[in-house]
Amino acid sequence: MSSEALRKLLIEVHEGRLDVDAALDKLKSLPYEDLGFAKLDHHRALRKGFPEVVFCQGKTTAQVVEIIQRLEQSNHTVLATRAGQEVFTAVQTVCEDAVYVELARIIVVRRGEGPVPGGKVLVVTAGTADLAVAEEAAVSAEVMGNQVRRCYDVGVAGIHRLFDQLEMFKWAQVIIVVAGMDGALASVVGGLVEQPVIAVPTSVGYGASFQGLAALLSMLNSCAPGVGVVNIDNGFGAAALANAITRLAYH
Amino acid sequence: MSSEALRKLLIEVHEGRLDVDAALDKLKSLPYEDLGFAKLDHHRALRKGFPEVVFCQGKTTAQVVEIIQRLEQSNHTVLATRAGQEVFTAVQTVCEDAVYVELARIIVVRRGEGPVPGGKVLVVTAGTADLAVAEEAAVSAEVMGNQVRRCYDVGVAGIHRLFDQLEMFKWAQVIIVVAGMDGALASVVGGLVEQPVIAVPTSVGYGASFQGLAALLSMLNSCAPGVGVVNIDNGFGAAALANAITRLAYH
Amino acid sequence: MSSEALRKLLIEVHEGRLDVDAALDKLKSLPYEDLGFAKLDHHRALRKGFPEVVFCQGKTTAQVVEIIQRLEQSNHTVLATRAGQEVFTAVQTVCEDAVYVELARIIVVRRGEGPVPGGKVLVVTAGTADLAVAEEAAVSAEVMGNQVRRCYDVGVAGIHRLFDQLEMFKWAQVIIVVAGMDGALASVVGGLVEQPVIAVPTSVGYGASFQGLAALLSMLNSCAPGVGVVNIDNGFGAAALANAITRLAYH
Amino acid sequence: MSSEALRKLLIEVHEGRLDVDAALDKLKSLPYEDLGFAKLDHHRALRKGFPEVVFCQGKTTAQVVEIIQRLEQSNHTVLATRAGQEVFTAVQTVCEDAVYVELARIIVVRRGEGPVPGGKVLVVTAGTADLAVAEEAAVSAEVMGNQVRRCYDVGVAGIHRLFDQLEMFKWAQVIIVVAGMDGALASVVGGLVEQPVIAVPTSVGYGASFQGLAALLSMLNSCAPGVGVVNIDNGFGAAALANAITRLAYH
Amino acid sequence: MSSEALRKLLIEVHEGRLDVDAALDKLKSLPYEDLGFAKLDHHRALRKGFPEVVFCQGKTTAQVVEIIQRLEQSNHTVLATRAGQEVFTAVQTVCEDAVYVELARIIVVRRGEGPVPGGKVLVVTAGTADLAVAEEAAVSAEVMGNQVRRCYDVGVAGIHRLFDQLEMFKWAQVIIVVAGMDGALASVVGGLVEQPVIAVPTSVGYGASFQGLAALLSMLNSCAPGVGVVNIDNGFGAAALANAITRLAYH
Amino acid sequence: MSSEALRKLLIEVHEGRLDVDAALDKLKSLPYEDLGFAKLDHHRALRKGFPEVVFCQGKTTAQVVEIIQRLEQSNHTVLATRAGQEVFTAVQTVCEDAVYVELARIIVVRRGEGPVPGGKVLVVTAGTADLAVAEEAAVSAEVMGNQVRRCYDVGVAGIHRLFDQLEMFKWAQVIIVVAGMDGALASVVGGLVEQPVIAVPTSVGYGASFQGLAALLSMLNSCAPGVGVVNIDNGFGAAALANAITRLAYH
Amino acid sequence: MSSEALRKLLIEVHEGRLDVDAALDKLKSLPYEDLGFAKLDHHRALRKGFPEVVFCQGKTTAQVVEIIQRLEQSNHTVLATRAGQEVFTAVQTVCEDAVYVELARIIVVRRGEGPVPGGKVLVVTAGTADLAVAEEAAVSAEVMGNQVRRCYDVGVAGIHRLFDQLEMFKWAQVIIVVAGMDGALASVVGGLVEQPVIAVPTSVGYGASFQGLAALLSMLNSCAPGVGVVNIDNGFGAAALANAITRLAYH
Amino acid sequence: MSSEALRKLLIEVHEGRLDVDAALDKLKSLPYEDLGFAKLDHHRALRKGFPEVVFCQGKTTAQVVEIIQRLEQSNHTVLATRAGQEVFTAVQTVCEDAVYVELARIIVVRRGEGPVPGGKVLVVTAGTADLAVAEEAAVSAEVMGNQVRRCYDVGVAGIHRLFDQLEMFKWAQVIIVVAGMDGALASVVGGLVEQPVIAVPTSVGYGASFQGLAALLSMLNSCAPGVGVVNIDNGFGAAALANAITRLAYH
Repeated sequence: MSSEALRKLLIEVHEGRLDVDAALDKLKSLPYEDLGFAKLDHHRALRKGFPEVVFCQGKTTAQVVEIIQRLEQSNHTVLATRAGQEVFTAVQTVCEDAVYVELARIIVVRRGEGPVPGGKVLVVTAGTADLAVAEEAAVSAEVMGNQVRRCYDVGVAGIHRLFDQLEMFKWAQVIIVVAGMDGALASVVGGLVEQPVIAVPTSVGYGASFQGLAALLSMLNSCAPGVGVVNIDNGFGAAALANAITRLAYH
Repeated sequence: MSSEALRKLLIEVHEGRLDVDAALDKLKSLPYEDLGFAKLDHHRALRKGFPEVVFCQGKTTAQVVEIIQRLEQSNHTVLATRAGQEVFTAVQTVCEDAVYVELARIIVVRRGEGPVPGGKVLVVTAGTADLAVAEEAAVSAEVMGNQVRRCYDVGVAGIHRLFDQLEMFKWAQVIIVVAGMDGALASVVGGLVEQPVIAVPTSVGYGASFQGLAALLSMLNSCAPGVGVVNIDNGFGAAALANAITRLAYH
Repeated sequence: MSSEALRKLLIEVHEGRLDVDAALDKLKSLPYEDLGFAKLDHHRALRKGFPEVVFCQGKTTAQVVEIIQRLEQSNHTVLATRAGQEVFTAVQTVCEDAVYVELARIIVVRRGEGPVPGGKVLVVTAGTADLAVAEEAAVSAEVMGNQVRRCYDVGVAGIHRLFDQLEMFKWAQVIIVVAGMDGALASVVGGLVEQPVIAVPTSVGYGASFQGLAALLSMLNSCAPGVGVVNIDNGFGAAALANAITRLAYH
Repeated sequence: MSSEALRKLLIEVHEGRLDVDAALDKLKSLPYEDLGFAKLDHHRALRKGFPEVVFCQGKTTAQVVEIIQRLEQSNHTVLATRAGQEVFTAVQTVCEDAVYVELARIIVVRRGEGPVPGGKVLVVTAGTADLAVAEEAAVSAEVMGNQVRRCYDVGVAGIHRLFDQLEMFKWAQVIIVVAGMDGALASVVGGLVEQPVIAVPTSVGYGASFQGLAALLSMLNSCAPGVGVVNIDNGFGAAALANAITRLAYH
Repeated sequence: MSSEALRKLLIEVHEGRLDVDAALDKLKSLPYEDLGFAKLDHHRALRKGFPEVVFCQGKTTAQVVEIIQRLEQSNHTVLATRAGQEVFTAVQTVCEDAVYVELARIIVVRRGEGPVPGGKVLVVTAGTADLAVAEEAAVSAEVMGNQVRRCYDVGVAGIHRLFDQLEMFKWAQVIIVVAGMDGALASVVGGLVEQPVIAVPTSVGYGASFQGLAALLSMLNSCAPGVGVVNIDNGFGAAALANAITRLAYH
Repeated sequence: MSSEALRKLLIEVHEGRLDVDAALDKLKSLPYEDLGFAKLDHHRALRKGFPEVVFCQGKTTAQVVEIIQRLEQSNHTVLATRAGQEVFTAVQTVCEDAVYVELARIIVVRRGEGPVPGGKVLVVTAGTADLAVAEEAAVSAEVMGNQVRRCYDVGVAGIHRLFDQLEMFKWAQVIIVVAGMDGALASVVGGLVEQPVIAVPTSVGYGASFQGLAALLSMLNSCAPGVGVVNIDNGFGAAALANAITRLAYH
Repeated sequence: MSSEALRKLLIEVHEGRLDVDAALDKLKSLPYEDLGFAKLDHHRALRKGFPEVVFCQGKTTAQVVEIIQRLEQSNHTVLATRAGQEVFTAVQTVCEDAVYVELARIIVVRRGEGPVPGGKVLVVTAGTADLAVAEEAAVSAEVMGNQVRRCYDVGVAGIHRLFDQLEMFKWAQVIIVVAGMDGALASVVGGLVEQPVIAVPTSVGYGASFQGLAALLSMLNSCAPGVGVVNIDNGFGAAALANAITRLAYH
Repeated sequence: MSSEALRKLLIEVHEGRLDVDAALDKLKSLPYEDLGFAKLDHHRALRKGFPEVVFCQGKTTAQVVEIIQRLEQSNHTVLATRAGQEVFTAVQTVCEDAVYVELARIIVVRRGEGPVPGGKVLVVTAGTADLAVAEEAAVSAEVMGNQVRRCYDVGVAGIHRLFDQLEMFKWAQVIIVVAGMDGALASVVGGLVEQPVIAVPTSVGYGASFQGLAALLSMLNSCAPGVGVVNIDNGFGAAALANAITRLAYH
């Protein structure tokens, strides 16, 4: 969107010729910035209710840096996922206040106030090895404006650890269950609660886990109703879905 | 739960020795009725917020009839899915007011008032062959107490059909996308809306659809954030998740 | 053939009581009866500690009848699995006291006293649709000489049903867990008990259960130690393994 | 083909004893040069209408260098795909004017005039990470004598980016759609245009993308007619098919 | 599209206020007729250059009949694929001049002149069992306005049968190769010709053909360039792609 | 091959202008009879050393009858595999002396002397349910001119039954091992003998046998050298390979 | 469990207010120590009858070190599996008497007396490359309190090597069979013995072994009864199951 | 052990020249040398007709060196496959005359005369990248005592290169076809020749070749009879089978 177009629209709002809701509608469908190798969609945040997201995997460091720079200059909060340490180092050179959450492999560049944390999201893991994926979900959900609690290493092999945490389950509006291997935790949680459960299979395991396929199939076949599944290791996707749900609850 | 136990609990409430919330808590964790081949969980409805559900596939007709009879005698609304015509005929002999929705393969036995329809659920299909699964989702969501709208045959091969329906998309709190073959509709819808999207792959297709695997993988890999996936052909599961979400919005 | 037997044979040769060709014949492993299309191994029962077993699937009715007749004439108890009603009808014509357990699809022809029931085997199922496989396991284990208890429909979607049965779990020496769909029950049980757990995935389910693959992978990846898995729907195999284990305990 | 044979053939043409079409026919079926580890088919270019192609993956650098050298000495334009930087360095030592397109991993050695660019090929990608495959297609199509336009990062998650480019779609004779993850872009484009669409699934993604399987299956099941699919990451193959098509249009 | 809208548009053309190309553009993006269970896209034919297509598999006979009736009343030629004999019988009751091609399982209802046959399409099969799929392709291509030749049972196990037909290969603009089992014919043909090759794997075979997977993978990995693959058994899809290609050549 | 061409060739031989070996060479590469839906290769028998083979699966009964009639009229012995009883009934109407081997699902029409049985082929099965595939192999090998011995139901679960048959193993030139389920018999036999072993996986089994995949993979990974594998249930293919091998030995 | 709670419980036992069995029951269901990233279950050893186990794969070295330190301070024997050399080096800095079994990739920290070796476990491998997995099983079983014998490289390709070891088979109470490639050894051993057999497929092999899938499927389809299967390469899991079984025999 | 040998042994016992315990020892199958981690079978060569083979993959360098040393000291020719350069370097320190064929990754230590080359084996490849596997086959077949000819890079994409080599095909007794990607060469060769064809799929390719799965399936489904398949990349296995076949022909 050229700045002329934007200026014109805002003037119309200013002069009362366009009311706010109509302007909002226009802004939601406006175009994007074309970098050649990428088309930046500055208004997606508006449409989907969360910050600009850059999925770093498969992009060169130079591409990531350029994308983040443009977004940040447009005053958007940026959430860059699947970012290695070397990417963060490069981002820092153009964006000093970028923050890196190493375990989650996430870079955050905050701009503006940020939303008042409204939703209540609980992130649960079956084991310690699921932490990286869980943190990708947790940090993403926080940046999107949710309160997040964590309940880690409560897999079904020692199910009494899970039952100890039931109070925390009642607090949540949405529960994200992160589990590899047999993925059984999603079914057990799904059978215990009435809130929506988002199941994230992880590639944790070996042999017949087939890089997360076992957990994925187990979760898709959950005998408990009310469970939605995202891609293997897709912590960010779980957070995005959780955020879409919590926005319903507090808006 | 024996009726003695139930009576005792209610007397305590009546006499003010137990307040309502505490009673509710107790009722949620109380046991079930044991038929030998099945353990009926009369309080699951309370815990999960929807009617008693009987999944008929894999059960004999005699088992289904006995289960429905017991549930109905406990004054629960019953939703029996994957029920063939011959099962319905048998159910009718013990339960005259049972209703059969043939396309959805669902038997409904209504008891009590039913919830005030609160949630707004939109069910979308890519093609005409996806209707049976879509109706399983739609009827289930209605029985659980939601308003449901249908928008069928808007697959991406003729994408202008989809864009005509955008007003209906804005109405919904949750959108269920039902699609077989390439499953691409889930990604397109997911990219257009800000509400939670529940994707249901169907076994519609042939050859390399591998009974719904193609659609399932496509949906799990959706490049649009905010999409949760349920099992192939699992219309009921989509409805259960949608209901868990809409309950957040209107409660 | 024990080495005592071998030594005895060689001494007979040495002392001239057995000529060389006769010894040669004997030295071939212990014999069997050759029907052309099948080789009956009358001594397998001795070696493996359970009755003669006939796996009917893939055999013609005529073949099954002939095999059972020969075995029964040798005074062996016979256990015929995967037998349809029409096979049983044919078997009855040659073997009047044959008994048919319809749900388990098993024909039993008892000969001799049978073992004193020694082992304690518990068979658990996740759902009602798993009963056929569970009964194949239960009936087989009984014929092999074990006490069997059944605990059906205690899947993790309503996990309080499971916890009610913990006393029965303490009774057992071996626990057979029969579950389709997500197969999660095997992990939950495996985490609760110290006895050996035998997991039997079933083909119960649809869509991404892929005829039992989901449950199979889930069980193989169980995060609880002490779980051994058999083939999908292989109730008999679970009983055979359970019997091999209980024989250790009471012999 | 020995130069004697070639000379003889050309003299026959020169002297009118062999007309041009007959000579062309002969040239098309003439043999190849045998290097022992490879059989160079100098006339394939004639038969298939594009330059000599060397697929470097799986060949040693020494083998690639020898093959390119022989081809270049026969005055053929050479297109070497899947070539790493180290291969290019080695090729340069024998062939100074070789050019390396790093992103596409292609080495080009131009000989002769090259065809007049006739076809119009549009290469579209869903995301930035698909660029390497897209450039393999684009550069290959150019070397084969086509005009190529690029339209990158227009995936269905932000479908308005795609609709902005519809003019460019009208220009093309063939459209190559390069997409990983859900591969949904192929179906959307296939539903919008009337030209042939060549779909290239990429291995971009993670988890249940299974190295491009999800995109491959999605594309094979495209609900839009007129879509042909090539192997995962096979940018060159898409260009070869596009070229075979455009040759029909302008010849 | 309401007839009012259509009338208005045509009047504008008539009165010179809208030129023909602009009208054509408008007609291409106009809406469709909504039957509730299906949305008929009367203008798709215009956009994609072939008749209205009804994919019968997964639709009830009543749905197919209603769809064909509506399309035929709009004076479109209709091509209904995957139609059983019983569907044809029902269609005849509303549409007397419908024609059924049994081997191809196609119903054709011709309306209007039909295009002048312009393209030249050759359909080749490896074996006799591939005929049903080949005829789906051949009949579809004919209805779309192409000349079609057939060359059946020339699989690579007797490759001299193939070489006998090379003249017919030279005639074609596009070659459709239909093969099951090893799918090797696609590579052999792809290596012999310079025209575009469309490969259709079939589910012909048994065992490790895995319902066409072997042929599909073989074709996707074709070592010959210029081969595009469609779904297993997708004769219609091959015809649609062939038609999109031949339209380039003769328009 | 037209009869004119054949006559001409034979006259040349007769008159001494063509010697026998040259004529033989010509006959091997001569063409076939074209039925439209099939191209009969009357000389394949000469090239491959066995009778005309008709694979009935996927062909209509009418097609099979016509093919067999033509072949039989050319005085070829015909071997029709995968033939149901209804096909045989139809074949009998045109070919009275056709013979049906029901278990093997093979029709044989003998013409001429047939080869002197030269090769020695042993067919071994793991179980009784493998008999149909084994008989397809055995009968095919016999018709091709081999002596065949059978050794059935010697699977590794009772390995002493196998060791009893070692003399028969020494007799054979080639051993065909037919086994489903775990396919382990191929490895055991491969480790015991020095002759070539042809392994035929069968679809016998259930659950994780995945219609023969387990046996197929097991056989391909045989730790014994000298084992070649054919397709699942491909008894005929095993016979053809065995025959190619025994021809080396006795020619 | 806070030390206060533990002290209180022990005082009750001491003063006779709680008898030993009741105390044992309480200890089995008591909670765990929460490290944030892990929840240590100090009483699992009691429940499952073996030492504290740390699965190192997927955990950071720092996490492993902290977990081992806490466990060791609670005076538990610790068995850490899948531990690389660098993990061991780090563990040594906090726990001097830790022992590393390199081939098995196991760290052992012994505390207290350890159980009197009661069970008799035989570990068998098909080949030399299976040793790492076999040693994980053997060392684990020893630490759990079993006598272990090893019988390596007795695969079925040279089956006489196996028959030489039959005496050792009679000694064992449980037999663990470790095999990759065709996995056939499990079936052969299962057919020879009457004890429970635990089959461990390994990822040894290449090509169509698909990282152990071939051996896994072969073992699941074992035609010998009495075989339970664990995950690919899961030596520890086999030991845990073996230990659960031997505890039945000697307790 | 031949039955002559057995008879002789029994006569010695009968005549008192051999006492019972000594006979018992001998009756165990012919021995091998036990290294603990491996059991060397010095008589396998005798049984299978080829040199001692060491499969190096998965063994430590130290293990390989010790095994080769023992074998070589027993005066056996040794063939070590899948051997890296570093393994060869270590072997040289104990065995100076060891020879390394780098491309084939084979170490050969010759002892004794070696067999007179009798068999005639042709090794054919589709492409240059298949050379490593082809050379493993060729070198192995040579060491086993066969004449070997090579015909490389004759894949079906340029099928005239293949037809040029038909004379060489007539020379061979067995033909080994090595091909990756579509594996189509095996079917084409199988259709042209009457000798046994051994097909070796290779992992050459990318994307939907799935590490050789596409070629494997294609070869198993070959429409040409007389083709046996070995594991992906298993050049040695092909040579062993070829050798077993040629031994029939010249012995």
